[in-house]
Amino acid sequence: MGTSPDPPASADQLAAELFGAMAYGELSAFGRLSFDSRYAPTLHDRSVLAKIAVGAYGNFALLSDRLSEMGIDPEEAMLPFQRSFDHFHERTKPGDWLESVMKAYVIDTVSSDFYRAVAGFLDAGTQQFVERVASPDQATEVLRVLLRRALADDPRLASRLALWGRRLVGEALTQAQRVGMEHPRVGPTLKNGGDARAAVRKLTGELAERHARRMTELGLTA
Amino acid sequence: MGTSPDPPASADQLAAELFGAMAYGELSAFGRLSFDSRYAPTLHDRSVLAKIAVGAYGNFALLSDRLSEMGIDPEEAMLPFQRSFDHFHERTKPGDWLESVMKAYVIDTVSSDFYRAVAGFLDAGTQQFVERVASPDQATEVLRVLLRRALADDPRLASRLALWGRRLVGEALTQAQRVGMEHPRVGPTLKNGGDARAAVRKLTGELAERHARRMTELGLTA
Repeated sequence: MGTSPDPPASADQLAAELFGAMAYGELSAFGRLSFDSRYAPTLHDRSVLAKIAVGAYGNFALLSDRLSEMGIDPEEAMLPFQRSFDHFHERTKPGDWLESVMKAYVIDTVSSDFYRAVAGFLDAGTQQFVERVASPDQATEVLRVLLRRALADDPRLASRLALWGRRLVGEALTQAQRVGMEHPRVGPTLKNGGDARAAVRKLTGELAERHARRMTELGLTA
Repeated sequence: MGTSPDPPASADQLAAELFGAMAYGELSAFGRLSFDSRYAPTLHDRSVLAKIAVGAYGNFALLSDRLSEMGIDPEEAMLPFQRSFDHFHERTKPGDWLESVMKAYVIDTVSSDFYRAVAGFLDAGTQQFVERVASPDQATEVLRVLLRRALADDPRLASRLALWGRRLVGEALTQAQRVGMEHPRVGPTLKNGGDARAAVRKLTGELAERHARRMTELGLTA
């Protein structure tokens, strides 16, 4: 008991906090990815990134509606997470088009893994809802194809994109860990009777591992 | 005959050119409106503008798919119009949040009027399709409410927003006229046996009039 001064969170409180974080994550991804889409070399490429941004907005809308149904103001639920996500985006401004594509790919896949992992802590109904938000988009595959093609055309890109991928996932997981530690309801719930820090560390490790596997599949050193 | 050296365009050629202009108009509106959404004072307001941007992307996707179905590369159809639209956006960068909302409202309503007017020159099937793209969104009404509320809260805003509205519509119609004049297929078709310049002038006048009516409804001097 001494290690956990916070009262255990109700399922609804936890869901509200998670959905708030997810909603702001998606809304901020929408803004940044659509902004980055302007640097696409062709209009077709621009529309690819725009589509990923639109998918992020769709997830935001799902989460925001769900919060409203729960009687929670989406704005209030999102605000505590704004600083962390904005900080992530500030620290990961793509330097060119391919870095934008890689960023979209990493955000899309890592957040989907994160949602799936988190769903395991929730009740069946909420789990189903989170699965819907996390469901992979056709657009993700398009990003993968874009990255593969660029790497095939110019293998010298590999080391730069590998470095960028590590930077992105490093910043993402640092922010995610901070969120997990700072928000008292998330920590104790994740610990599941164990050590909150250990639980967050385990989740972080799993996300990093899956990311590394995807980078390897692209031919990059994660 | 001496006034029109260009051969009359086929219905498909005209549709391709119009759809190319519309598609790039929507894609560029998506990029700019989503960028502007970042300056919203609240996350809720941000999501309102984001939704308008997402609607623009939806229209782009409809138009792009239609072009592909017609055997036309959307990229090639859009490229001739990129400069005009980009120029419009460069010349109308909102100075703050309310100017962003007004810009979204003007783009949304004027382009919808334009699409409707243009549909009259097309065959029934194409007309139906254009109506679908032009169909007003619930989101437009939300912008109108936002503007009304802001003007009620601070009536001194009226003169600045009225000026901004005139500037926006002036730039939009100047670019639209240039497109009409520069693109040889659009002009002769619109003239309908008459004078192309007169036809474009008539359309421009109608769009300006409808815009003015909306501004008056907001309590602004158009």
